[in-house]
Amino acid sequence: MSELRRDPIGGRWVIVNTDEPMAPQDYEHDAPRSGKATPCPFCYGNEAQTPPEIIAQRDAATAPNSPGWQVRVVANKFPALQIEGMLERRGLGIYDLSNGIGAHEVVIETPYHDKDFSDLTVTELTSVLHFYCQRTLDLEKDRRFKYIMIFKNYGASAGASLEHPHTQIIALPMVPKSVKEEILGAHSYFEYRERCIFCDMIRQELQEKERIIMDNRNFLAFCPFVSRFPFEIWVMPKKHTSYFCQTPYEELPDLAEILRGIITKVKRVFGDTAYNFIIHTAPSNSDGANIESYHWHLEFLPKLTRVAGFEWGTGFYIVPTPPEVAAKYLRDAPVE
Amino acid sequence: MSELRRDPIGGRWVIVNTDEPMAPQDYEHDAPRSGKATPCPFCYGNEAQTPPEIIAQRDAATAPNSPGWQVRVVANKFPALQIEGMLERRGLGIYDLSNGIGAHEVVIETPYHDKDFSDLTVTELTSVLHFYCQRTLDLEKDRRFKYIMIFKNYGASAGASLEHPHTQIIALPMVPKSVKEEILGAHSYFEYRERCIFCDMIRQELQEKERIIMDNRNFLAFCPFVSRFPFEIWVMPKKHTSYFCQTPYEELPDLAEILRGIITKVKRVFGDTAYNFIIHTAPSNSDGANIESYHWHLEFLPKLTRVAGFEWGTGFYIVPTPPEVAAKYLRDAPVE
Repeated sequence: MSELRRDPIGGRWVIVNTDEPMAPQDYEHDAPRSGKATPCPFCYGNEAQTPPEIIAQRDAATAPNSPGWQVRVVANKFPALQIEGMLERRGLGIYDLSNGIGAHEVVIETPYHDKDFSDLTVTELTSVLHFYCQRTLDLEKDRRFKYIMIFKNYGASAGASLEHPHTQIIALPMVPKSVKEEILGAHSYFEYRERCIFCDMIRQELQEKERIIMDNRNFLAFCPFVSRFPFEIWVMPKKHTSYFCQTPYEELPDLAEILRGIITKVKRVFGDTAYNFIIHTAPSNSDGANIESYHWHLEFLPKLTRVAGFEWGTGFYIVPTPPEVAAKYLRDAPVE
Repeated sequence: MSELRRDPIGGRWVIVNTDEPMAPQDYEHDAPRSGKATPCPFCYGNEAQTPPEIIAQRDAATAPNSPGWQVRVVANKFPALQIEGMLERRGLGIYDLSNGIGAHEVVIETPYHDKDFSDLTVTELTSVLHFYCQRTLDLEKDRRFKYIMIFKNYGASAGASLEHPHTQIIALPMVPKSVKEEILGAHSYFEYRERCIFCDMIRQELQEKERIIMDNRNFLAFCPFVSRFPFEIWVMPKKHTSYFCQTPYEELPDLAEILRGIITKVKRVFGDTAYNFIIHTAPSNSDGANIESYHWHLEFLPKLTRVAGFEWGTGFYIVPTPPEVAAKYLRDAPVE
């Protein structure tokens, strides 16, 4: 018989196939790269094809918007939201709307078109992560923005429209529903137990061990007990921290190592495969003091299954491989 | 500039590209059918390959589980949840779980493998819809089940694993999160205004007209103001009704006509394309009396875009074609 599991944060249920777990080779998934050589606006020499760079790490004596960079942040040429203007909310009968104010930036992670996140060195990835923090801190200064969302789509089936390695940053003029729910859920738990639910999760996972993939001094990677997707992975700082962008610079290499590690492991198990990752952090606020009940984390979602009517209608997910089984495959896969 | 729109029921925001709407020909979508002739357990003559039929509409003097049927309902051979046993909820540290009790049935809509929903006649579709109601009423008698979800996946990219036309019915031992949220949202509106939000939506749509696709005496089809997906369509009974399964039999042909109409229109605009539809109804309860604040409806979601990291992280959706533009394409497409 399958097992129903309830997410203690959001109250979502999932159906876990504990009886006949699907093995990695049972999943059909699309190749993340087309192999087509198309002219790429993110490659060396094509810097003029993107909006002007906002910030970059580049060789001394190279000019902005020219080659010689290692990481480059630009505005999205086709932004979902636009940065100019005042936010104007209004009603229309029973509906509510607002103009599309926000910011939409792209972090080009490397000049090398064919590399993926996991092909970069820990030092290179540390620079990328440092840019995530810097851009967040800068965007948070704009009082119109209430939430800064950092996410990566790798592969067409995960929603990527360009193959060159990149991450997106969107600044939103309101805290989105899913984030609010997570924060409220964690807050309810804190009110009841006076402990952070994520810290409790870390304690329980370290004790039970069976869902852990890897860890180091500052970070832990595990398959969550209430995964929505098969082989879903969460990465969490071991120390209670609410804001991603407040991660001390000296801890970023540990995060880089874990991210590189889990993506490499996923590729050992599945071959090159599409994925998304999303950084869940507390919303921007004026003083940035730690929030007792919320703990930032990164959710890594390999794109192995398709979301169907049942999931859209219920918010229930059907997980063909239990996280305990998935974690074992990933734990056993070598990193180098 | 794009427009941010807020769903008045769940509080979800979407970003609508009102500036440069994507036209139907700009979407790349997968063909819903492989064209491969594989042996099909839902075809005439293969009745023994499914679990025994629960109910069927069949020619006089034909035996159950043999050819001669027009619509056939069977248990799912690979059920997500199993019907035998007592529901046992328990804790595991901070987590909650339960054994996987429920029911999972399949309505085989026609003996013809290559037909789609919209290829059936209004009379044939009325029988299919009538079976939805009958199975719901029967499953609701089981006090372990708190919610009966009816949904259809058409095409592999919409999650269908078999090509033969079929609908799925899942009985769940708890009201799922998405349903709870919708009911609570509608209830809050009712508390504040003493009116059903869905009835208000119908009034506003009938007045503004620009999002309406088609209607008849009993049902209305429109593109919702806060669509999550491009060309999303909602079908609603014009008269306030909380429970789908309480639709009077004589109104089912009107619903069949609307469903057949919208799917035909979607195919005129896009060619054969994958889709999901889901019936949203009030949860099972003991007396079945109408609930003032909730109004059942059907959500039809063509599979034209891919859900990416931004959507998974925020619950925000980016809608490349505004519903007003989508509705015009669909309104103008002929039904016959």
